[in-house]
Amino acid sequence: MKQITCQETKTISERIVFAADLNDKQTLFGGKTLSLLDENAGLASFKVVHGKIATAGYDHVNFWHPITTEKHIKIESIVTGISGRQIEVFTKIISQDLKDDTSEIAFTSFCTLVALRSNKSLEMPKLVPETKEEQYLCAGFAKRLIERRENFQKKDDFLSHLSLD
Amino acid sequence: MKQITCQETKTISERIVFAADLNDKQTLFGGKTLSLLDENAGLASFKVVHGKIATAGYDHVNFWHPITTEKHIKIESIVTGISGRQIEVFTKIISQDLKDDTSEIAFTSFCTLVALRSNKSLEMPKLVPETKEEQYLCAGFAKRLIERRENFQKKDDFLSHLSLD
Amino acid sequence: MKQITCQETKTISERIVFAADLNDKQTLFGGKTLSLLDENAGLASFKVVHGKIATAGYDHVNFWHPITTEKHIKIESIVTGISGRQIEVFTKIISQDLKDDTSEIAFTSFCTLVALRSNKSLEMPKLVPETKEEQYLCAGFAKRLIERRENFQKKDDFLSHLSLD
Amino acid sequence: MKQITCQETKTISERIVFAADLNDKQTLFGGKTLSLLDENAGLASFKVVHGKIATAGYDHVNFWHPITTEKHIKIESIVTGISGRQIEVFTKIISQDLKDDTSEIAFTSFCTLVALRSNKSLEMPKLVPETKEEQYLCAGFAKRLIERRENFQKKDDFLSHLSLD
Amino acid sequence: MKQITCQETKTISERIVFAADLNDKQTLFGGKTLSLLDENAGLASFKVVHGKIATAGYDHVNFWHPITTEKHIKIESIVTGISGRQIEVFTKIISQDLKDDTSEIAFTSFCTLVALRSNKSLEMPKLVPETKEEQYLCAGFAKRLIERRENFQKKDDFLSHLSLD
Amino acid sequence: MKQITCQETKTISERIVFAADLNDKQTLFGGKTLSLLDENAGLASFKVVHGKIATAGYDHVNFWHPITTEKHIKIESIVTGISGRQIEVFTKIISQDLKDDTSEIAFTSFCTLVALRSNKSLEMPKLVPETKEEQYLCAGFAKRLIERRENFQKKDDFLSHLSLD
Repeated sequence: MKQITCQETKTISERIVFAADLNDKQTLFGGKTLSLLDENAGLASFKVVHGKIATAGYDHVNFWHPITTEKHIKIESIVTGISGRQIEVFTKIISQDLKDDTSEIAFTSFCTLVALRSNKSLEMPKLVPETKEEQYLCAGFAKRLIERRENFQKKDDFLSHLSLD
Repeated sequence: MKQITCQETKTISERIVFAADLNDKQTLFGGKTLSLLDENAGLASFKVVHGKIATAGYDHVNFWHPITTEKHIKIESIVTGISGRQIEVFTKIISQDLKDDTSEIAFTSFCTLVALRSNKSLEMPKLVPETKEEQYLCAGFAKRLIERRENFQKKDDFLSHLSLD
Repeated sequence: MKQITCQETKTISERIVFAADLNDKQTLFGGKTLSLLDENAGLASFKVVHGKIATAGYDHVNFWHPITTEKHIKIESIVTGISGRQIEVFTKIISQDLKDDTSEIAFTSFCTLVALRSNKSLEMPKLVPETKEEQYLCAGFAKRLIERRENFQKKDDFLSHLSLD
Repeated sequence: MKQITCQETKTISERIVFAADLNDKQTLFGGKTLSLLDENAGLASFKVVHGKIATAGYDHVNFWHPITTEKHIKIESIVTGISGRQIEVFTKIISQDLKDDTSEIAFTSFCTLVALRSNKSLEMPKLVPETKEEQYLCAGFAKRLIERRENFQKKDDFLSHLSLD
Repeated sequence: MKQITCQETKTISERIVFAADLNDKQTLFGGKTLSLLDENAGLASFKVVHGKIATAGYDHVNFWHPITTEKHIKIESIVTGISGRQIEVFTKIISQDLKDDTSEIAFTSFCTLVALRSNKSLEMPKLVPETKEEQYLCAGFAKRLIERRENFQKKDDFLSHLSLD
Repeated sequence: MKQITCQETKTISERIVFAADLNDKQTLFGGKTLSLLDENAGLASFKVVHGKIATAGYDHVNFWHPITTEKHIKIESIVTGISGRQIEVFTKIISQDLKDDTSEIAFTSFCTLVALRSNKSLEMPKLVPETKEEQYLCAGFAKRLIERRENFQKKDDFLSHLSLD
């Protein structure tokens, strides 16, 4: 079985916060944050499987600190779990204050992606965490997977309560 | 205490799916979906409180069916819970096939927003569900609130395991 | 002959006014307003005919009140006339002030769209207005149609006076 | 009284048609055309008055021919009438086929802009048409002005029939 | 051999500076300037060859003066040299102050484009400068071409020093 | 004197190539590439000076290989020279083919930025290259600086030949 380290899946995007992306509170519009998140998390999953992958869902999406134009941001994603055709990607956004050079974690999220069945000869590698951060995040995967399965089992019941109007 | 019906918080946005927003699988880019979600959910929360509100987080974010350019979408958000300064907004995206006029629920999500302490004289209204769908969604609020509190209590522990590099 | 009520063609999009869309007077850029208008009007026409439809023109396009970031907007379109392959869509933009919760009509427009000949078996339904607003708007359709035909008859003369440089 | 020739107000923008701006018929999205129109018409009016100007409305907005990615476009605006604080701008979009180097007029529109009262010492110049095209367009201004005044007189009646819901 | 004057290749785009395109210094974001540059320079080259053309590179890209929202800009490109399948396009951006009606050259650049070999029957015309500005710019082409060839000869050596990590 | 390694200035952004950013040849639009370049190069310069910095110019801007939607890109910038208030940033874009996992250098460029005089107490650090690539790039800085100075000395002569029309 092939192996891949979390480090090999690491995906980074450093960005300027543009005035065009600010909301009425002069902080980065949530929708922009989520859009940056999705692009970066997708790229991390592509490092595990060279094929078609679809986003299945997000959970534990937390906006810890507002991001202002005084700050630059660094979006970092790594794969933190692989199970069957499912890939879990953790993303954190670190904001750096330009004036005093301090940093803080502004945002974190877990994303579940699924390698499509249409991919031929799909061999999923074994994931190897190395740093303490990676080991901590990967250690929680089993529990998060159970929660997601429990939620997924309620899918039909949940959707049956929603109207199509 | 003031009352507000879920219906009074209903926020709708019907959209064309533009070629510019498609990913490599010719379906609506997840980041675009999330961006539409955040704008619409925010507008629903503004109907509860006329003041500054910040997005705290998302959970149960599920992409049920891919959205293609053959489809139009209707984004619908309603407030499904109010507790202290917290407002929970449920959003569903219904996609409509242009050819055969069928509809399906493509996406659902719960969002938590918080009315900022800086708002003066903040009086949160009592939320009144009316339809069966609203009653079902509001009935689950207490349980989701407990889950979020449990997650929030782990916040400091969780963030302490993350590096700022 | 099939019937369709104006209500069944109603298309709504509620939007936040982003700082990125403001002009030098700190009001919503006209080009952005027109872009929102065209997307919404097009969606209303799709509810009449499931096929290819092209925008033919706009008239009575009026910016009644400037739209600022202090406001949210609600774009509403309904079909107000059907004649042969032509569909007339009326659009109004209501802006809501966040502070005092007052509303005003900021913008109105009539759009003419044409179902393309390439659509097979095109059956146009009879339009049924119900509310007083719908009855008023539909009542003016015949007169607007005559004006448009008169203008269209001058088309060749008009275009012959324009240079291609 | 100062004079200004139509030529001195001429505003040009040549553009590539991007795939991102195409609709489901693979032609330039109407909303994009209208957005380009508004930017260019506004710039033409700024050549008459160095001050704050607001768009009041559009009429005679005609999409004569669809614009595809095989074509480049040239947007041309000139001022075609000045009356009191009102400025009328005519805009035409010429599309050029890249393969056979032929051109056609794809779109035309008249826009009315108003110099704001807040501008100090506003002196409106006398407009001087020179070419046959300019003379033809300026000759029609008086009639269009009457039509607009008639429409404007119906404003209060018209708006009183519209609901704010 | 066909001839083409510089004037026949002239490509113009007048633009409003939008707040959305400003950086933290309240001047036009460099990336936006470069994006406008590339679209306009490409259009000028299309006037020489009706076929597929690719951008090979830029040099002498100079930001002479910052562009603010108080200003309008006029992007002007002309072809200034043709050699084999190569086309050199010069672009200048003139910014105009709205208040005092003064102008200055804010930006200049030379771009090299290459007509693709896949074009059939590619006949490059002879370029004819007419104005003093055109004669000055075209006169420098031979020297710039030599510099570019010298740089291009170092290509393999240069790229061999770069890592693919 | 403070020191900074090239590595400490390294700025990375990994990106998906969106269909919306493709030109008529189905490759990444040059203007989009340049826009990504400018954002990333700017971020690298901010790691040297915490203050206001303006882009002065670009040279040696080369599009080595077209970038298609089959590829992901990684934009990497490092500072490669500091002289007075000038900062030189080198940027390379590596494109990775998703199918066969091969990489190539698609684009390179040198950018000159200038720390503004308005910054108080500006202390520029000494730059320390470590890897062979960094040493090679930094070794060429002195020669590139001379070329730029020679070009800059011709500035007044050059601009005096350009018209403001």
